[in-house]
Amino acid sequence: MTRTQPQPQPRPDTNCRPLRVAVVGATGAVGQEFLRVLHHRGFPIAELRLLASARSAGTEMQFAGQPCRVEELTADSFSGIDLALFSAGGAISKQFAPAAVEAGAVVVDNSSCFRMTEGVPLVVPEVNPEAIAAAGIGFGDGLRPGIIANPNCSTILMLVAVTPLHRAAGVKRMVVSTYQAASGAGAAAMRELEQQTREALDPANNGQVLTKDIFPFQYAFNLFSHNSPMEPNGYNQEEMKMVRETHKIWGDAEPAAITATCVRVPVMRAHAESINLTFERPLTEERARAILADAPGVALIDDRDANVFPTPLDASHRDDIFVGRIRQDISRPDGTSLDLFLCGDQVRKGAALNAVQIAELL
Amino acid sequence: MTRTQPQPQPRPDTNCRPLRVAVVGATGAVGQEFLRVLHHRGFPIAELRLLASARSAGTEMQFAGQPCRVEELTADSFSGIDLALFSAGGAISKQFAPAAVEAGAVVVDNSSCFRMTEGVPLVVPEVNPEAIAAAGIGFGDGLRPGIIANPNCSTILMLVAVTPLHRAAGVKRMVVSTYQAASGAGAAAMRELEQQTREALDPANNGQVLTKDIFPFQYAFNLFSHNSPMEPNGYNQEEMKMVRETHKIWGDAEPAAITATCVRVPVMRAHAESINLTFERPLTEERARAILADAPGVALIDDRDANVFPTPLDASHRDDIFVGRIRQDISRPDGTSLDLFLCGDQVRKGAALNAVQIAELL
Repeated sequence: MTRTQPQPQPRPDTNCRPLRVAVVGATGAVGQEFLRVLHHRGFPIAELRLLASARSAGTEMQFAGQPCRVEELTADSFSGIDLALFSAGGAISKQFAPAAVEAGAVVVDNSSCFRMTEGVPLVVPEVNPEAIAAAGIGFGDGLRPGIIANPNCSTILMLVAVTPLHRAAGVKRMVVSTYQAASGAGAAAMRELEQQTREALDPANNGQVLTKDIFPFQYAFNLFSHNSPMEPNGYNQEEMKMVRETHKIWGDAEPAAITATCVRVPVMRAHAESINLTFERPLTEERARAILADAPGVALIDDRDANVFPTPLDASHRDDIFVGRIRQDISRPDGTSLDLFLCGDQVRKGAALNAVQIAELL
Repeated sequence: MTRTQPQPQPRPDTNCRPLRVAVVGATGAVGQEFLRVLHHRGFPIAELRLLASARSAGTEMQFAGQPCRVEELTADSFSGIDLALFSAGGAISKQFAPAAVEAGAVVVDNSSCFRMTEGVPLVVPEVNPEAIAAAGIGFGDGLRPGIIANPNCSTILMLVAVTPLHRAAGVKRMVVSTYQAASGAGAAAMRELEQQTREALDPANNGQVLTKDIFPFQYAFNLFSHNSPMEPNGYNQEEMKMVRETHKIWGDAEPAAITATCVRVPVMRAHAESINLTFERPLTEERARAILADAPGVALIDDRDANVFPTPLDASHRDDIFVGRIRQDISRPDGTSLDLFLCGDQVRKGAALNAVQIAELL
């Protein structure tokens, strides 16, 4: 059995010039994670500028044990900045990312604003790092400032696990059901889940929850179809992101057929996905397991004897995507289909880590 | 567009002779639900005998506002009993159901013990009520005592929704991912989820949970692959029940191809399922919606404009299976595939109600 060679995990080049870095949306769940990831990976920083709304300006945050004051985001915030990491929602990206590029910065944008824009590379470092060079974006000679888009969290998690199998046997069709954590809707949604759960457990409330600021219905001990707006075809935007972004990232002449059902579950910060794959060519579960054991960014958690498989809690605060339940799909006896189940930290690999890994590729 | 005719929901025939009924496992989550369902549906009861382990014997329960004392289950418990509703686990059913039949009772068994046994009808009243008469089991002339099996909860929920579509267009392949509630593992698992959640929210515990009596890992704010034992093919028993029971209940010469991934989520008592269906013949989402709007035991909750779809909380304590997110699967542009999402009360329609509806068919 031939194993695919592991691809080197992009790591900071310690010889590279330290960068002047801005973090836009520094006080949010992903913004805070940016600071942790930049610090833990030893990202070469000459200057760090934390930017947020006027409401959050003046807040003192910590970076590498040093206090760092949040400034108000304005069109002038990017003067002298090399790299701007955006995670403050699509409207902020739309308004300020062009200004950052104008000021000479490379933007890594975590919003969906520019993901499908022609000329904007949409990158998962383990999957399509070459897309950045192809777009001519970077810091060196002959390279230009520009926007690089960070894909949707559910797309990132899925593609880290599925792409190595796609390369081996050609994914023809994917049926995905997600189990998405509160963090995908931001820090306020995580607080609401916690608050609602306290209320649901309080005998004085008779099982009712009182706080419904973020979601219009009960989230505690409940789940619901993903709250993104519906498209005319009956899929919600989260589901269509998984379809369209995968097509752009893989860039295949004949795109894989994909259907997704996205569901929010009462879990804090790691998403799970149940994925059924149909391939062009047969792929045994043994070969799939060997491929994934060597795949960058993947941790294989697939112990049938002990009934130990990926859980969101185990995957929380971890860089790797946990993959397990890899099995030959009995509904296709010709060996062309597999099922698998994965969990990945939505805030880390689903957002902040992936963006910093993109910056490391520069 | 032709709509399928609604099938009459089986209801108690008020002219039928009142029955002497035994409930085995009366103190469990499903046992308690048996009592509520029997009462609310006006089931004709001449005598009610509550049976449980020696540990629970002497417990006083309520039925229709009257106190009713739990007796210890023994081989002699079924003398004079017409109908025995079993929900005390496979070992108890295996030991005592034959004794109940020997004593002249019809047994409706909620365990998995006899489901795949030849000659034991496996029945969802909305799907295959005729299986009981075909087996010759019942109370009237020429009928015999015997065991009727209640299917697995996830199977029941799925088949109430999918069978009307199967009849219209022939299900060729099903890909199912479940979101299963604590109740499926019994009342103790529900208490453990609640207790763990309190512990996880208690600042003194620093995010750790202490109680792990039922499951070996954290359930609060987490999810995990279904805890039933794994089969050699890498599917767990819950998943294989959904496959094998569907084949037996539908009884098709060429069984539908089915793959399932079963996951336990931190929800109390209603299961959810994300289902992708591929049909022999094209089926539009409009026709599917019309069929399900008229289907017995189904409530259509599919409001795209308001983003209102089935949730486990809404489906809790309800008889109907809530079905929504019905949409043409964009991964199959030939119109032969649909996605849908459903929720149903695991304790009620997934167990107690289905069993009582079976008894009503007698």
